[in-house]
Amino acid sequence: MYDTIIVGAGVAGLGAAMYSGRFGLKTLLIGETMGGTIILTDTVENYPGFKKLTGMELADKLKEHALEYDVEVKEQKVVDIEKKEDGFVVKTAKEEFETKTVIYATGTKVKKLGAKGEEEFSNKGVHYCALCDGPVYQDKVIGIIGGSDSAAKEALLLTQYGKKVYIIYRKEKIRPEPINAERVDKNDKIEIINNTNVVEIKGDKFVESVVLDKEYKGSKELKLDAVFIEIGHIVLTDLAKKLGVELNKKNEIIIDREAKTNLSGFFAAGDCVDTVFKQAITGVGEAVSAAYSAYQYVK
Amino acid sequence: MYDTIIVGAGVAGLGAAMYSGRFGLKTLLIGETMGGTIILTDTVENYPGFKKLTGMELADKLKEHALEYDVEVKEQKVVDIEKKEDGFVVKTAKEEFETKTVIYATGTKVKKLGAKGEEEFSNKGVHYCALCDGPVYQDKVIGIIGGSDSAAKEALLLTQYGKKVYIIYRKEKIRPEPINAERVDKNDKIEIINNTNVVEIKGDKFVESVVLDKEYKGSKELKLDAVFIEIGHIVLTDLAKKLGVELNKKNEIIIDREAKTNLSGFFAAGDCVDTVFKQAITGVGEAVSAAYSAYQYVK
Repeated sequence: MYDTIIVGAGVAGLGAAMYSGRFGLKTLLIGETMGGTIILTDTVENYPGFKKLTGMELADKLKEHALEYDVEVKEQKVVDIEKKEDGFVVKTAKEEFETKTVIYATGTKVKKLGAKGEEEFSNKGVHYCALCDGPVYQDKVIGIIGGSDSAAKEALLLTQYGKKVYIIYRKEKIRPEPINAERVDKNDKIEIINNTNVVEIKGDKFVESVVLDKEYKGSKELKLDAVFIEIGHIVLTDLAKKLGVELNKKNEIIIDREAKTNLSGFFAAGDCVDTVFKQAITGVGEAVSAAYSAYQYVK
Repeated sequence: MYDTIIVGAGVAGLGAAMYSGRFGLKTLLIGETMGGTIILTDTVENYPGFKKLTGMELADKLKEHALEYDVEVKEQKVVDIEKKEDGFVVKTAKEEFETKTVIYATGTKVKKLGAKGEEEFSNKGVHYCALCDGPVYQDKVIGIIGGSDSAAKEALLLTQYGKKVYIIYRKEKIRPEPINAERVDKNDKIEIINNTNVVEIKGDKFVESVVLDKEYKGSKELKLDAVFIEIGHIVLTDLAKKLGVELNKKNEIIIDREAKTNLSGFFAAGDCVDTVFKQAITGVGEAVSAAYSAYQYVK
């Protein structure tokens, strides 16, 4: 019987594990990918204390810090969580574990565009991670779909590889953080196509063009060699919902300032909760509160 | 006219400044002591990402990070804040500044014991910071008053200098984090005197003993060379209270999950707010939320 099982090994899960270990709780951290989605990020310059590092480096630091303490780790996917009278049973495909409390920090997965050709050309010019898949497009023409801060950062990164980067955004104006907006403005390789949707991705063996829902420079077809889709994330809260944990309209888990949910002994933190401004640092802060709440609950 | 003035330059204020700078807000950070109370801490091993560093080192890292951005800094004490129709006026003894928003991150100051002799022997054997004043008590007998995690950490630090360290605590059992409780238990130099108050601090030129309110090993007088008082902190929320900002019973500022107070344009974060489990990391997380809320407000 564990005192707490942390579901998800992203920055929030790792932060929770470190504190849970410090508290002397019998702790198991289960996650598919150590570090979570931040490892797909090239440059992190907004985790206070580190001026600039890669997502992978930050994840490694948080992991090393957590492993300073007596924390068990399993790199597996949690497929179900059941409520028992005196706690929870957390199940992976291979094993199951009993625990008094759960800290749920599953985060998100990338959202698909849903355009024709997206599946067919997946990994053949259709990608979801500039850092992972950008480097092969040296001197090529690249499109990025989306208008968020993440999309702008991905576009900036892709200018290191491609000779031209189109940002294609369905709304009127992209909305990065001001500092990234300025960088995009100053970058000659980037061209922004606003108020436009991609309705189809075309090619032969690899992507050759995208079809837009309105003309751009006289044509609805835009020639390019790759499309990176960065239109947001889907929160991974299905297992929590099934347990009766309260979600908001965006399917995010509703927590209070102590990272408590409506379900006793079940705490949550990070990208899967209802925080308005989600950052690595706010997720880690919530995770630390969650670890404390779990400690208080067990004690 | 600033977009935001951050009052307090501890870890929360520095975290807020970095994000505020990133957001492109015209930002002024005012504080008496760069780094705030954490610079009095010898070992910080619970700021996720840094396994172990001194409080001063952490403060320096946060400060350097903030100064990567366009942030003005004044090392002054804020003596008053006034509400104006379109914002606030923040006053120091020398200058005053106008701002659209305030991020209030003043933190706390140390609590005095109130015992006879405390003032008289201040800095002559009565101290409030083991890291600052401990090293002169090489091979001496030291008392520490208090039972919190901070008190335990101070006691552990003092064992590096003194030959004997008494922890004198008014309640039944000291209540450090488990990991520090274990370290205290294992340390032969530490002796704990529970259920006991210090009613007087005595000496000639320097501290020579304390008077207890009950006998310990047959005497109410305990010979020692120094007393470190670590009985908690007073939240510095007077200026906020005067403005009509809502406080709880502990005089902490009540914030929501976006670091908003009841007063429009006035945000708060860190040790001066009503967070249950206050840590450097949770304060910085709140500060980042406060910077975002200020940015949204100004925009």
